[in-house]
Amino acid sequence: MNRRRLVFDGKGKTLYEGPEPGTLIQHFKDDATAVDTEADPNKATVIEGKGALNNRITEYLFQRLGDIGVPTHFIRRVNMREQLIREVEPIPLEVVVRNVAAGEFAKRLGLTEGMQLPRSIVEFHFKSEPLNNPLVTEEHITAFGWAAPPEIDELLALSLRINDFMTGLFLGIGIKLVEFRIEFGRLWENDMMRIVLADEISPDNCRLWDARTGEPLDKDAVAGNASSLVEAYQEVARRLGVLTEAPKPKTRGPVLVTNNDKPT
Amino acid sequence: MNRRRLVFDGKGKTLYEGPEPGTLIQHFKDDATAVDTEADPNKATVIEGKGALNNRITEYLFQRLGDIGVPTHFIRRVNMREQLIREVEPIPLEVVVRNVAAGEFAKRLGLTEGMQLPRSIVEFHFKSEPLNNPLVTEEHITAFGWAAPPEIDELLALSLRINDFMTGLFLGIGIKLVEFRIEFGRLWENDMMRIVLADEISPDNCRLWDARTGEPLDKDAVAGNASSLVEAYQEVARRLGVLTEAPKPKTRGPVLVTNNDKPT
Repeated sequence: MNRRRLVFDGKGKTLYEGPEPGTLIQHFKDDATAVDTEADPNKATVIEGKGALNNRITEYLFQRLGDIGVPTHFIRRVNMREQLIREVEPIPLEVVVRNVAAGEFAKRLGLTEGMQLPRSIVEFHFKSEPLNNPLVTEEHITAFGWAAPPEIDELLALSLRINDFMTGLFLGIGIKLVEFRIEFGRLWENDMMRIVLADEISPDNCRLWDARTGEPLDKDAVAGNASSLVEAYQEVARRLGVLTEAPKPKTRGPVLVTNNDKPT
Repeated sequence: MNRRRLVFDGKGKTLYEGPEPGTLIQHFKDDATAVDTEADPNKATVIEGKGALNNRITEYLFQRLGDIGVPTHFIRRVNMREQLIREVEPIPLEVVVRNVAAGEFAKRLGLTEGMQLPRSIVEFHFKSEPLNNPLVTEEHITAFGWAAPPEIDELLALSLRINDFMTGLFLGIGIKLVEFRIEFGRLWENDMMRIVLADEISPDNCRLWDARTGEPLDKDAVAGNASSLVEAYQEVARRLGVLTEAPKPKTRGPVLVTNNDKPT
């Protein structure tokens, strides 16, 4: 594992050179940036499940999105913490889709937390940690050449499709998809460029509320307690039917055909 | 004057009911929000010229913009501090046009202060003082119904025309138009709605740098010294040829025909 060439080392993931040209290995770390593991070192072992959970959740969501025709960088899962992906040219934007006013967004625009938005809102943020991923407009994106106008249209169209599908999918398992953040990349095939979904979709970059209780099932679930974070991620994985560690509920078939089968 | 019905009392301007239906009196105050007048009460008398200067500068710029076909709310000057305007339905957006990276914008996107932008960038900010006028995108604007998509197109087109004209005008008088902030409103005439330039254009809402020295000729000119602010505003008015208090330089004709006549 140490002999593999490191391509990128991020907060939640590491990228290694893949077995074939144009491929990468995406390794999901257990590091939970929202969790202060130093406060109680024993908690670190509990968070250890996070990488594996995000690997499985991302695999499942990218496959289902692929099924409806949303192109992604995903090829196949390699092991518990890793997946093989296509190497793409990253587009330096975080696309955020919001359905319900929450968090920083609600504060920024003076909206009541939990308010259903008049319609889904897509935001672009410039991907820069030192700048804290600032909100940008199409004007900024085109002026600085981060994406061309037709690419922005494609990002918008893909993001709205992803939102429609995921809103339905999560609704079917009793979860409200409040908002999520995704990334895209450019992929060349036979001299043709297409934009594909990249990175990951997991509770690390979604805001998910239990539809019945309103309880967060994402990074917000931590509330100073690392175990509740993993429990929340496990709950999402369990409802999606991708949890391997615990036995699946016997009454649940494939998630897509179990709408209104809200778990209690 | 006290008998007039107050319509709106803002930081830099007051609006009163006008003499005819559909008109308002726009009164320019001397209050300079960037100036701490309490630090030295004597400075207050010096700032007294600001309202009159902004009234003249706005009158001049709105008239010249009207000449090139940019519709505005301006009707005519009434006195030293007031102008008669059409009452419009305000669009709750501040449109910011940026040509050079400066201030908050440069900091937000990690750009070098003074860097010429690849092209002019138009930003929309939601007009809300409690929220500190947050940057918004077309998504926010249309989702919350602040303006319709064709209106956004019109705002963009008008703002870019205004920028082209003003960039040229200021260049002709030795001033670099770094950025400016404008507002628009809806005006109904014969059941037709048009979008017109409203509010004001003055050194209060422009960032203007002397083309030769780079010295600010706007609110930034204050640097803890209120007199330098009025001096800067006077200098802008003088170069535009609208200063009435001091004699006009004899070598200067109408500003529009004196390009390259950069004052020293």
